[in-house]
Amino acid sequence: MRTKIMLIGALLFVWSVSCLGSKTVNILDYGASSGGSDCVQALQKALEECRHYPGSTLFFPKGDYHFYPDYGKDKYVFVSNNDEGLKRVIFLLEDFRELTIEGDGSQFVFHGFVNPFIVEHSSNIRLRNFSVDCSRSFHSESIILSNHARGIDIEIPENYPYRISNGVLLFTDGQREEQRKTTVSKVSVYPYGFLLEYDPVKKETAYMVHDYYLDGNPLPADSLGGRRVRIYLDGLTGTPGNVMTFAPSHRNYPGFILTDSRNIKFEEVTIYHSGGMGIVGQRTDNVSVLRCRVTPSEGRLVSCTADATHFSNCTGKIELGNNLFENQKDDATNIHGIYVQIVAVEAPDIVVTELKHSQQFGFDFLKEGKEIEIVGGKSLITKSRNKVLEAERINKSLTRIKLTEPLPVGTGMGDAIAEIRAYPEIHIYGNIIRRNRARGMLLNCRGKTVVENNYFHNPGAAILFEGDASFWFEQGGVSDCVIRNNIFDNCLYGVWGEAVIDVAAGIHEEREKSRYNKNIRITDNTFRTFDKGLLLHAYGVDGLVWKNNKIERTTDYSPVRTYESPFKISDSDHINIQE
Amino acid sequence: MRTKIMLIGALLFVWSVSCLGSKTVNILDYGASSGGSDCVQALQKALEECRHYPGSTLFFPKGDYHFYPDYGKDKYVFVSNNDEGLKRVIFLLEDFRELTIEGDGSQFVFHGFVNPFIVEHSSNIRLRNFSVDCSRSFHSESIILSNHARGIDIEIPENYPYRISNGVLLFTDGQREEQRKTTVSKVSVYPYGFLLEYDPVKKETAYMVHDYYLDGNPLPADSLGGRRVRIYLDGLTGTPGNVMTFAPSHRNYPGFILTDSRNIKFEEVTIYHSGGMGIVGQRTDNVSVLRCRVTPSEGRLVSCTADATHFSNCTGKIELGNNLFENQKDDATNIHGIYVQIVAVEAPDIVVTELKHSQQFGFDFLKEGKEIEIVGGKSLITKSRNKVLEAERINKSLTRIKLTEPLPVGTGMGDAIAEIRAYPEIHIYGNIIRRNRARGMLLNCRGKTVVENNYFHNPGAAILFEGDASFWFEQGGVSDCVIRNNIFDNCLYGVWGEAVIDVAAGIHEEREKSRYNKNIRITDNTFRTFDKGLLLHAYGVDGLVWKNNKIERTTDYSPVRTYESPFKISDSDHINIQE
Repeated sequence: MRTKIMLIGALLFVWSVSCLGSKTVNILDYGASSGGSDCVQALQKALEECRHYPGSTLFFPKGDYHFYPDYGKDKYVFVSNNDEGLKRVIFLLEDFRELTIEGDGSQFVFHGFVNPFIVEHSSNIRLRNFSVDCSRSFHSESIILSNHARGIDIEIPENYPYRISNGVLLFTDGQREEQRKTTVSKVSVYPYGFLLEYDPVKKETAYMVHDYYLDGNPLPADSLGGRRVRIYLDGLTGTPGNVMTFAPSHRNYPGFILTDSRNIKFEEVTIYHSGGMGIVGQRTDNVSVLRCRVTPSEGRLVSCTADATHFSNCTGKIELGNNLFENQKDDATNIHGIYVQIVAVEAPDIVVTELKHSQQFGFDFLKEGKEIEIVGGKSLITKSRNKVLEAERINKSLTRIKLTEPLPVGTGMGDAIAEIRAYPEIHIYGNIIRRNRARGMLLNCRGKTVVENNYFHNPGAAILFEGDASFWFEQGGVSDCVIRNNIFDNCLYGVWGEAVIDVAAGIHEEREKSRYNKNIRITDNTFRTFDKGLLLHAYGVDGLVWKNNKIERTTDYSPVRTYESPFKISDSDHINIQE
Repeated sequence: MRTKIMLIGALLFVWSVSCLGSKTVNILDYGASSGGSDCVQALQKALEECRHYPGSTLFFPKGDYHFYPDYGKDKYVFVSNNDEGLKRVIFLLEDFRELTIEGDGSQFVFHGFVNPFIVEHSSNIRLRNFSVDCSRSFHSESIILSNHARGIDIEIPENYPYRISNGVLLFTDGQREEQRKTTVSKVSVYPYGFLLEYDPVKKETAYMVHDYYLDGNPLPADSLGGRRVRIYLDGLTGTPGNVMTFAPSHRNYPGFILTDSRNIKFEEVTIYHSGGMGIVGQRTDNVSVLRCRVTPSEGRLVSCTADATHFSNCTGKIELGNNLFENQKDDATNIHGIYVQIVAVEAPDIVVTELKHSQQFGFDFLKEGKEIEIVGGKSLITKSRNKVLEAERINKSLTRIKLTEPLPVGTGMGDAIAEIRAYPEIHIYGNIIRRNRARGMLLNCRGKTVVENNYFHNPGAAILFEGDASFWFEQGGVSDCVIRNNIFDNCLYGVWGEAVIDVAAGIHEEREKSRYNKNIRITDNTFRTFDKGLLLHAYGVDGLVWKNNKIERTTDYSPVRTYESPFKISDSDHINIQE
């Protein structure tokens, strides 16, 4: 009887939703047009219509739609591993239920300092079949002409407007400079934070190059006439003909920010560019990214200026299937939790916690009733479990919490706290991951993790197990991870990693005891390697199987490493290597 | 009968308030101590206690109290003529009624990137008898050693930590640099936006110097050993022995921000430093600043890095009496309204308005029911009056408004809108205003304005009547202004103004018709002048009397100007000059 009533209830619900909903909202009916004019106001009206009809599809007939900052919405956003700020948002999906954005193969072009998509407190959102690009990229590129005693000479293509202002090189939006200078004058600048050299033939980071970090400040420079510029940085060298890229100093403009939402699905979405990560999910349940592409647009070597995808404290299922992730300026994905550090013990059951990494500020997760674990900040050994009784946010970095149980002896300042949550199941399959900066992916999730049938060609480790509670404060530690049937093709042609598969959590104390990663099975993969580098480096592991993997030798790059064994393993238990 | 009941009601209210209140809260009872330790948490507890007892006095026994950022509160603030942002606030007085902060002559020292005081939605606040300073100033100073072909050599005293990073000069907080560099590394930097030279003997801006604007970017520099540095900027010169100051590139840290409050009284408060203006009032009713001092602390030449006081869209009465305003890096005060520009006419009665000046973003004043006037953007002629029927804030710069009446013919894009409000009465008396950058004060208020018994010694105009709707978008236009019994002592020793009293609104069209300032009476003042510069420059005025003013010649500076008459007046009516 009860089942019957529930069934009728469910049917009534479905009926009422379908009565209201399932509407197709055509953006052209709201004043948008393809070809260049600003579609922001039309978009806002169309989205309001969709909001009234859960289940709606916002339809963009195939074309190129342009979005300018002027009429965008303002929203202050804290976004994990990117930069917080008051964002000017174009697609602001707050409190939406059941929405599909169907692009019909359209191109969405974003102008200026805007955030393309923010999804917050929303559910059942499908983003389909469109591309995202920026008219002026947040990074800049230049051609290396030659080396000089204190730096290099470069030529800057026209799509990267710049000027030399008071002796330093600034990248700009190319708009005319203000004529009247005052104490509050600012130039519209694309600030850069580090340099990295690319090989324009291979369309990847040049062989074995490293980043030149600038602390966010522009470089001294002289004009050499035309668009040729001499830049000064001690130790900076490059190969003439290669491309020197200038990465933005901040991650202010990620492509898609997903916050406190559920059931978000990307299908056939192309991200040509973002000024920050491509897709960032935080505290979100169930995210699928299927048949999408992160790839630079014509004439650029960089796509996203940071990770292609990134997930912090997510739950449910994360599925990355059949995507292309290339030329992003960091990893293809990183799925992790967040640690706070105990910075004051005010009573046996009251502590003040701090978000230590500035790109985690405002990441509030210590709420009343949350189960937590307390780990050694340097050992990563779980010391105890507890529960939040009360939480008081002091500011964006500090939260005071009262615990249900007093802290055990030996726990205190410098230890770290993470949420114990329904860790998501991870399925990563059929992706091509290549030509980016740094690693392929970071696996830092305690839910079942399967990585299969992918192709990796990365300058650093293809797969890194990281996590630490002393520097990045990213919670990791897999408990059940399968890596099978992947091709690792000539990885490690750069400087970002010790091995193709690198299990290297931030265990700085008690290594002989700490077993942070568990149950990793690496089977049936093909490793194509150009030198005797490490295939597997691991410490702090309990349970690792290496079986039935194939190694092929190539001559695609100059060999540099001469390890006797492809395996370097220490401080681990239950390791089973079958070569 | 009705009056009697109201009277009894009022008495009951007074009684209940006085029962609750009039408590003295001693900061020492809440864990604060003088001498160096962080008093922020004690302050927060004490303020909460005060909140419960309207009429309370928060008492700081004479001492030096230190405030650090760690436990400060976060608040996103839009603050007129300063820079918006998420502020870390120490004294956050939100929704307070009847509070006195009595400092007993204490020194309040603020550390790091914090905002000392924000008063919002509060009333009857008295701030008494304390000083405000910053441990590391937001500007920096250096001694000019010599000139070289492309700039100057300087020596930087130890209280201004700096380093040369990748070939550019950065001012820092002197903290140790991060050892591990990453893509997100930032140095804790005090960015600078313009240079200005000071005479350390006279403790004022050097004779006839001008600002060197930098667009907010650091300068190329080489170390010369010790704390000596060679900086490069084409055209930069200085007098050896003088001091070259580096002004902060932003105004993020004003001393006191007063927003949407009433009855705020400063008495015997000293502001040694602020990273922005000293006191900024916006949309606030009745502000008194009495017997206060804006003055640099020992060893510095700069006090506030912008105006000492500043008032936007205030009402009631503004009283500045018997203060010392010296060495602030802009005017002693500027009392004005704010214009928005009409940027779209969507229907005869619907317009989109824009806050054009970036330091006015978020200054929302167009609310339902507001009376407004519409003026020509370049003529400043009032075209019509109207009323806001509905207002829709689009973002921090755009607001769409529906008017009660359609726009008249000839009104539209490019015209400007200001609120018609109860313009405040201004009384400025007994102040010493000297040695600052730029002008003495800007009088831009339509309420009765009396400026009497002040002493002025400023490098620019002592008094400027400005206001425009095309660049700064500050509404001015006095209607009844008396300037009497002041001493103007050797003003115009710098480049910021055409005359000691300069009536120079931004009238760029229809000068022959526009009469923006009205009824100015300048009587019984003493002008001490070192050359034949202008005492009065005016256009666009209706009604001006110059009477019974005394001129004394000095030899305190080298003469540079040779005007035949001390008066330059055009495009004005009803001018009565009696020499």
